[in-house]
Amino acid sequence: MQERTLGELAEHVGGHVYGDPNVIIKSAATLRRASEGDISFLTNRKYAKQLRSTKASAVIVGKEAPAAGIPLLIAEDPYYAFMRIMVLLHGHRKHKKTGISSKASISDTAKIGTDCHIHDFVVVEDDTRIKDGCVIYPGAYIGQGVQIGSDSVVYPNVVIYAGCKIGNRVIINANSTIGEDGFGYATHKGVHHKIPQTGSVVIEDDVEIGTCCGIEGGTLNDTVIGHGSKLGDAVTVGHGSRIGPHCLLVAQVGIAGSTTIGHHCVIGGQSGIVGHINIGNNVTIAAQAGVINNVPDNQVILGAPAIEANMGRRAYSMIQYLPEMRQSIRELRGQLKQVTSPDEPDSKESAEQPSDT
Amino acid sequence: MQERTLGELAEHVGGHVYGDPNVIIKSAATLRRASEGDISFLTNRKYAKQLRSTKASAVIVGKEAPAAGIPLLIAEDPYYAFMRIMVLLHGHRKHKKTGISSKASISDTAKIGTDCHIHDFVVVEDDTRIKDGCVIYPGAYIGQGVQIGSDSVVYPNVVIYAGCKIGNRVIINANSTIGEDGFGYATHKGVHHKIPQTGSVVIEDDVEIGTCCGIEGGTLNDTVIGHGSKLGDAVTVGHGSRIGPHCLLVAQVGIAGSTTIGHHCVIGGQSGIVGHINIGNNVTIAAQAGVINNVPDNQVILGAPAIEANMGRRAYSMIQYLPEMRQSIRELRGQLKQVTSPDEPDSKESAEQPSDT
Amino acid sequence: MQERTLGELAEHVGGHVYGDPNVIIKSAATLRRASEGDISFLTNRKYAKQLRSTKASAVIVGKEAPAAGIPLLIAEDPYYAFMRIMVLLHGHRKHKKTGISSKASISDTAKIGTDCHIHDFVVVEDDTRIKDGCVIYPGAYIGQGVQIGSDSVVYPNVVIYAGCKIGNRVIINANSTIGEDGFGYATHKGVHHKIPQTGSVVIEDDVEIGTCCGIEGGTLNDTVIGHGSKLGDAVTVGHGSRIGPHCLLVAQVGIAGSTTIGHHCVIGGQSGIVGHINIGNNVTIAAQAGVINNVPDNQVILGAPAIEANMGRRAYSMIQYLPEMRQSIRELRGQLKQVTSPDEPDSKESAEQPSDT
Repeated sequence: MQERTLGELAEHVGGHVYGDPNVIIKSAATLRRASEGDISFLTNRKYAKQLRSTKASAVIVGKEAPAAGIPLLIAEDPYYAFMRIMVLLHGHRKHKKTGISSKASISDTAKIGTDCHIHDFVVVEDDTRIKDGCVIYPGAYIGQGVQIGSDSVVYPNVVIYAGCKIGNRVIINANSTIGEDGFGYATHKGVHHKIPQTGSVVIEDDVEIGTCCGIEGGTLNDTVIGHGSKLGDAVTVGHGSRIGPHCLLVAQVGIAGSTTIGHHCVIGGQSGIVGHINIGNNVTIAAQAGVINNVPDNQVILGAPAIEANMGRRAYSMIQYLPEMRQSIRELRGQLKQVTSPDEPDSKESAEQPSDT
Repeated sequence: MQERTLGELAEHVGGHVYGDPNVIIKSAATLRRASEGDISFLTNRKYAKQLRSTKASAVIVGKEAPAAGIPLLIAEDPYYAFMRIMVLLHGHRKHKKTGISSKASISDTAKIGTDCHIHDFVVVEDDTRIKDGCVIYPGAYIGQGVQIGSDSVVYPNVVIYAGCKIGNRVIINANSTIGEDGFGYATHKGVHHKIPQTGSVVIEDDVEIGTCCGIEGGTLNDTVIGHGSKLGDAVTVGHGSRIGPHCLLVAQVGIAGSTTIGHHCVIGGQSGIVGHINIGNNVTIAAQAGVINNVPDNQVILGAPAIEANMGRRAYSMIQYLPEMRQSIRELRGQLKQVTSPDEPDSKESAEQPSDT
Repeated sequence: MQERTLGELAEHVGGHVYGDPNVIIKSAATLRRASEGDISFLTNRKYAKQLRSTKASAVIVGKEAPAAGIPLLIAEDPYYAFMRIMVLLHGHRKHKKTGISSKASISDTAKIGTDCHIHDFVVVEDDTRIKDGCVIYPGAYIGQGVQIGSDSVVYPNVVIYAGCKIGNRVIINANSTIGEDGFGYATHKGVHHKIPQTGSVVIEDDVEIGTCCGIEGGTLNDTVIGHGSKLGDAVTVGHGSRIGPHCLLVAQVGIAGSTTIGHHCVIGGQSGIVGHINIGNNVTIAAQAGVINNVPDNQVILGAPAIEANMGRRAYSMIQYLPEMRQSIRELRGQLKQVTSPDEPDSKESAEQPSDT
């Protein structure tokens, strides 16, 4: 753990200090849990009132932050500054330098770069290529002909099927599967016949994949996860789909096959996207959305079926009024009947109701 | 397998017998499949009429159960009585006493208690502590500094990342992952920068976790699964969320980060809960719900967006009437126009319709 | 890779050629990506206009296909023909003939058939039976008493709990779990007591299961996946449910316990089906549906809650009009009030609005 002054941290992130720059910072903590020596951050307004009660020694804030009785580190992009300070103070997960275990099973035809750490019970099949600085944790399986770029990390029990191409600085979390056969069957006379899946998976540079994900290999074209995109846990991507660069797919998202997603899209948790459609660039899809049509660039959508977000927020929140609305329609019909046919008895109107809306 | 009389079973569970207490019971079965020597149970009214046709030798029922031509074991809480009889007659899953396999890779600095069974191809990293009576199945990975309480069971290929704390009598089913990095990135100029996740996961006593679950480690605070809570398969819990004691999370539930859930909550399958909210105690959330706001104690909610259950059941079931309702509104508008402006021709009203609601 | 003439391919699939039958076909590709020597196919109308621009040497089409300037292979069931040609030209995934690894842990009491290939770090427990021609990939766990039929493939890190029965020609993809304890607890005085799960899982012939799936063992009755059914990635099936033959369950489907599904059902991605219900034969359930009631044969349903598809498509797509509809109802009420009570001031009507529907 590094120890720094607040002034040093401000200089590191290009921010400036409001208050004492000599205060000592040892680690980071949330506003609520921070104590002396901690730096905290405020980027979500929900927690703004904790600014007054926090015991942090300093807080990273944006330019519009309220004054507070404690030292502040004011940054253009406070969450980014927080990230950089976290890296400085705590660093990323460390990997033990194990070298190549004698208990791993590594094919003679595998080409392994320098400074790679391959743990016990890993299997590396024929004709694979793993570049410099990779860490392959116990129980991972690297199928035939797989290529992994430099400085990538494959966590325990990850399975990479034959032929997949993994980029540089990729992180694949435990128990995920890359390149299994796509869900492709030709149904003929009631029997589902498996279609050979000749495509593979390409995971570009700087991608992170959560745990328990499944990225299918393509039927004919490769499935692609674009550089810098990040997938949460239990995400599934169907065969031949292409996800552009710098997307975020939150946990439990499901994308069917042959769909194309542009760059910088954010796809909320548990959303589903059907196959064979195109999602543009900079599209934001809310959690649990169901996307069944093409989406143009820059749209924000929500709901199932997914619609434009402002309209959608109002519309979906009105489902709760359906019983009242239906009742109102009945009453209006009754009242209108009184106006147009005032002589008819009420009972008849009531008797008709069961077939009404 | 144990063989008992119905009277013995009734005594065991504190119930009483209606009919012959000397009937011999060897095992348990459903009403439909039971045959002589089986005891069955009736706790779901759906199956009540099977009481007449069952071939069970006896049936466990509650106090309000109808009379039937077969011996009954009447219990205050018949499902609990059924559980206790299942444990008596069949017992829980047995674990072979393998001791510590020479094919496991166990760090010299790991402290392993007595009567632990660590199978082939398990990896136990440095500075771990596994207390007495634990079973660690093949291919499991126990990361650096992990602590596991006594009598816990870790099924095959489970991965526990460095630093997690697992309580006593915890069961983690196969292929689940505990403590992977939280889905935390600071997006700056279109690039997602990984934030070090310094928190860990705490799984308290008597928790059971299904297969293919992912429980993220926290960014700053630990992610916590409270004692006695049970998670189904493919559940994901985001970084820094805290689930209270005695909750049930059914399969495929997804909980985002920094959310707090009270005690004794029941969360139905495929439900999603957004981040940074508070769910009270004794809250019941129906399957597939989408919870986006705080929920007070004792609420029952359903739907996406989730609303109070009685209102929600009526409201969501009325979506099917939307086409009729919209048509009714059009008709009412037309009829009202006839009343207020009887001279205008009908055709004009029709022509306007496309832009109407 | 095989090389064939278009005429040979047509003969192989019982279709006929429109154009030059002597054109040489080496491989298959999509319309957009095909080049000389490739055969492509057109079965989704969405891609029909690509027929004019494709560089494929031939295209497989159905009988209603438009004329095109390139050789066509006209087939009764073009997707089925495509599958058969894919198998002919590319074949299914090949498995290296490793024999039985000395690095696998295989019980002396396991019975292994001929031509089985059991990879490194596999564990095969006591009293198992694996028939001829099976491939068990690295890190898989075959629990006590498990039976696997002939020619089945178990991919890396799959876990099969004790007692499960797997049929012939079954494929289980990586990191899936079969036979974990069902999610069954008796809640008594606020504590969830685990119920022994004495049922197992039966997977019949020709089933394929995706990655990261969880198929629970039954409480009393076995969980069954019927022959020829195919499950996508991250599908969960609850204890004691029975899925009939020839069903398709797309990725992330969740089925609760004790539910019965007929034959030839198609269940779209992310759909959820509650426990203790019956789904008939030939039922189609759209993606993200929530099924809470029995469904008769041959129904097509969608939505959550799920309703008949034609009605459902109209109804769910009208949620977006709810704000307009609610506004229309208010306006109608106001106008009607003017008709019935023309003397009352408008302001009063407005004042009432907040409590209106």
